[in-house]
Amino acid sequence: MTAADPSVMRWWGWGVDGHDPQLTPAVDAMLEATLGAPRGGLNPPVDEAEVALPDRPLPSHVTAALNDAVGDEHVRADHRTRLLRAAGKSYPDLVRLRAGDGSGAPDAVVLPGTSEEVAAVLAVCAEHGVAVVPFGGGTSVVGGVEALRGAHDHVIALDTRRLTRLIDADRTSRTATLEAGLTGPQAEAALAAFGLTLGHFPQSFEFSTVGGWVATRSAGQASTGVGRIDQLVLGLRAATPAGEVVARTVPASAAGPDVRQLLVGSEGTMGVITEATLKVRPAPEARAYEAFSVRSFAHGAEVLRALRQHDAAPDVLRLSDEAETQLSLAMAGTGRAQDALARYLRLRGHEGGCLIIAGWEGSAAAVRRRRLAARSVFVRHRALQLGTPAGKAWHHGRFGAPYLRDVLLDRRVMVDTLETATTWTDLERLKGAVTEAIAGTLAKRGTPAFVGCHVSHVYTSGASLYFTYAARQETGAELEQWRAVKAAASDAIVAGGGTITHHHGVGRDHAPWLAREAGGPALDALRAAKAAFDPAGIMNPGKLVDGTLTSAPPTEPSAQAQPA
Amino acid sequence: MTAADPSVMRWWGWGVDGHDPQLTPAVDAMLEATLGAPRGGLNPPVDEAEVALPDRPLPSHVTAALNDAVGDEHVRADHRTRLLRAAGKSYPDLVRLRAGDGSGAPDAVVLPGTSEEVAAVLAVCAEHGVAVVPFGGGTSVVGGVEALRGAHDHVIALDTRRLTRLIDADRTSRTATLEAGLTGPQAEAALAAFGLTLGHFPQSFEFSTVGGWVATRSAGQASTGVGRIDQLVLGLRAATPAGEVVARTVPASAAGPDVRQLLVGSEGTMGVITEATLKVRPAPEARAYEAFSVRSFAHGAEVLRALRQHDAAPDVLRLSDEAETQLSLAMAGTGRAQDALARYLRLRGHEGGCLIIAGWEGSAAAVRRRRLAARSVFVRHRALQLGTPAGKAWHHGRFGAPYLRDVLLDRRVMVDTLETATTWTDLERLKGAVTEAIAGTLAKRGTPAFVGCHVSHVYTSGASLYFTYAARQETGAELEQWRAVKAAASDAIVAGGGTITHHHGVGRDHAPWLAREAGGPALDALRAAKAAFDPAGIMNPGKLVDGTLTSAPPTEPSAQAQPA
Repeated sequence: MTAADPSVMRWWGWGVDGHDPQLTPAVDAMLEATLGAPRGGLNPPVDEAEVALPDRPLPSHVTAALNDAVGDEHVRADHRTRLLRAAGKSYPDLVRLRAGDGSGAPDAVVLPGTSEEVAAVLAVCAEHGVAVVPFGGGTSVVGGVEALRGAHDHVIALDTRRLTRLIDADRTSRTATLEAGLTGPQAEAALAAFGLTLGHFPQSFEFSTVGGWVATRSAGQASTGVGRIDQLVLGLRAATPAGEVVARTVPASAAGPDVRQLLVGSEGTMGVITEATLKVRPAPEARAYEAFSVRSFAHGAEVLRALRQHDAAPDVLRLSDEAETQLSLAMAGTGRAQDALARYLRLRGHEGGCLIIAGWEGSAAAVRRRRLAARSVFVRHRALQLGTPAGKAWHHGRFGAPYLRDVLLDRRVMVDTLETATTWTDLERLKGAVTEAIAGTLAKRGTPAFVGCHVSHVYTSGASLYFTYAARQETGAELEQWRAVKAAASDAIVAGGGTITHHHGVGRDHAPWLAREAGGPALDALRAAKAAFDPAGIMNPGKLVDGTLTSAPPTEPSAQAQPA
Repeated sequence: MTAADPSVMRWWGWGVDGHDPQLTPAVDAMLEATLGAPRGGLNPPVDEAEVALPDRPLPSHVTAALNDAVGDEHVRADHRTRLLRAAGKSYPDLVRLRAGDGSGAPDAVVLPGTSEEVAAVLAVCAEHGVAVVPFGGGTSVVGGVEALRGAHDHVIALDTRRLTRLIDADRTSRTATLEAGLTGPQAEAALAAFGLTLGHFPQSFEFSTVGGWVATRSAGQASTGVGRIDQLVLGLRAATPAGEVVARTVPASAAGPDVRQLLVGSEGTMGVITEATLKVRPAPEARAYEAFSVRSFAHGAEVLRALRQHDAAPDVLRLSDEAETQLSLAMAGTGRAQDALARYLRLRGHEGGCLIIAGWEGSAAAVRRRRLAARSVFVRHRALQLGTPAGKAWHHGRFGAPYLRDVLLDRRVMVDTLETATTWTDLERLKGAVTEAIAGTLAKRGTPAFVGCHVSHVYTSGASLYFTYAARQETGAELEQWRAVKAAASDAIVAGGGTITHHHGVGRDHAPWLAREAGGPALDALRAAKAAFDPAGIMNPGKLVDGTLTSAPPTEPSAQAQPA
């Protein structure tokens, strides 16, 4: 990775080298005892050159037209460039890539430098029947960026990384217009020059992009306070095969159905979001993070609900269930501070309880005022204050969790996450049903699971539920094992009244359940809107309204996969 | 009007008898001096029986099928029932009705009692090619409920007034599921039994319905604090000709484009919203309203922006410009209190300034805390506290303004309102441009105008602008005069970066400018979605994506209008 190439991650895993965590002896022991996953037995990825990519070079007249649109140096078809856009970062994506299966790679990668060049690329692709997969940070964990061809012979990845301008920053109206390809750090750096922040910090923040956030209805770690990206979008600009859509920047409107909310979450299936005008706020003067303990998940949910419904919620507000709390404590390792914490929790009858992280950012006065208001709710609800060290530790490591997966994959441990949201009334019932679906499915397959859960986004009417599970891989049947869990968990979510995704998006992997959640008439209307924007069906085929589960039996013309 | 028929207003004007205001001598003098509108010369509406309605009875087999669907007594075609659904309550609607033009009346009025009956009515109408106009309170001021036929020979009004159940009230999750036909007072009464409130108070509150609010993206007077209806919708149920849409109740979702936000604001063109699950809150224990004075509109806008951006905005927050403030003071008449206020404003150098109304509702503690926070911003920005009487007076009369129009129409005075929203940065520029467009157009026609403006909804990024204008009617050319103003004002709004409507909706009257605001590809996508829900094109034709200005040259088969 170079500074000019900021958001390219390791092709076989998350992030960049040098951040992999060391497993503590306690975690090692848990892996062995709970999952039956022995130490040693490393299973590294194949060599980069050995990954088989489809051998389907673009016809030369298409390449020539693309060269005309964006310049020769921005149309690339070398092995590494294609490999890096072969998939997102889901568990099945990494399983396949690590094993040398790069069948999801595009035939070429095109990097337009302006909104106009994006439109020109779409025009070439519509004319020649080439599928287009918009590609931002490539951090999708739902199969959103795999280069499927749909009904077309060829497919390109349209990489937005050259669209990195801050077009406008308005301190009076607290808005900023950002180009789609800005990564989190790039966007924040550009805004910081104006004393502003977007405050949107998904776990993928270091790599994911403004356009990707808007296209997938991203939620950030501080969205309880700052709002989800769909609540921050005031205006946008999108290139579609049918022409450009410009949704003007207004604070609110009654001018018919909201076209913004039709493109927000459209995941590249209707067009390419090239600019978004987002709500921003003054860069924070002050920042405070602290931890609390509650006796149980149910107790914690009551505390979170009270905070939100009494207008006293912190910006960041997270509750880990008993299992996830235990894992977090094990991950923290041993030492004087850890031992003291354990003793304190035991002494106060909170052994086996649950951890809450609360965080505030803003002006010093606002942080002080809001923290006092929240603390009074915590105290009233008998949450135990654990002070700032655990809160700071969370803040320090808040983008690091995905690296753990790579370490576990090396060790033939399956690990995945999935998420939903529901009302407070249904929260515990749904949590129980999904946990049981995951654990039951894996137990039946002879690979007993760890299943933990946390709440990371808190609303007046309900909250998100984010599940993390791990089990020993079924060697040779890794994808079947994963599909079985995915189906069971998703069935439980949809049957239990949740939404199939609270912030990961739909992609391929949630598409079958989106159909059940939304129902036929609604899905048909979305398909009709897509067809209006994209008459030739070139935009990100096989996703969202037309998706099938990753590595499900293919329904498209199969590509010839060959080693480079 | 009877209790069983709660939301039927006077066919020729607003509301019910007994609420018409008396013009004060000061207002009388303003009308004469500013508008050249002489006293006397009353122009009352024609007799009810003289209003000409289309003579197009439904074919008997269609009536029979509708009778089967909802019961004979709920399919009505008498003169009065049809007349009451002939139009909404816009200025051109009332001009036409008062003159005896009921050409917008439906051929019959159908009143289904359940969601299933709504679906059955749509099935009958789709089969027989009958246009359907969903009708709630009939308070549209943008031509939203006029019974246009589109490509069809016949049209019915589908009146939702029998859909009045509170289906669910959940105090834990603060949600309530309400049927579409509940009027404001009915909805609040049903919720009050559970100690809850929706807190949505548009000026039409006494007559408009839950379904109408959701279908038109309504904003209430307290929406600065409580949120617009589109922000309160968590789930909904809609009958469409293609089948039922059920958007489940979840606090947030990343499951693709938001189908809720495609139906919210669809104004009956995609289907009939039959139920909505909305955010609710505990019924307020306490309520406080007070008034402040600022030296100018620009000064007031700074105060409002500071309140909102410092997280200290009241629930109700309104700023009248200089012209509207002067009118309000004139409307209040004379007396000891009024004189004292005028003296005080003069003494403090605020003569000719602007009035701000601020209101808080909620728990006693929250009202106290929030009021203190807001007051410190008011004081810091040198707004002058005027105390509670003027605030209470506003609250007392908050639904009364539309009655004034009827009194003025009697006197051949044209009066209309229109609204937009934009960013803080553009607020004054747009206000000036729209004011100039209205005043200039009317001056050129020889009917000099009063133009006032207020801000009633305040966002971090901007605010609404609500214009009220009045002028002497051009007798015999009332609609041409109105169309000229509408076009000039709307052109100024769209050219100036505003939205064509902040809370009145699109209907017929804003449709030409929606097309310009949204642009071709976005409008085509909305049309495609409509066609998916409504393949036969029966749902509220001639509105929203297919609308033309009220009383513009008709493009549809002209109806034979005959006196009853």
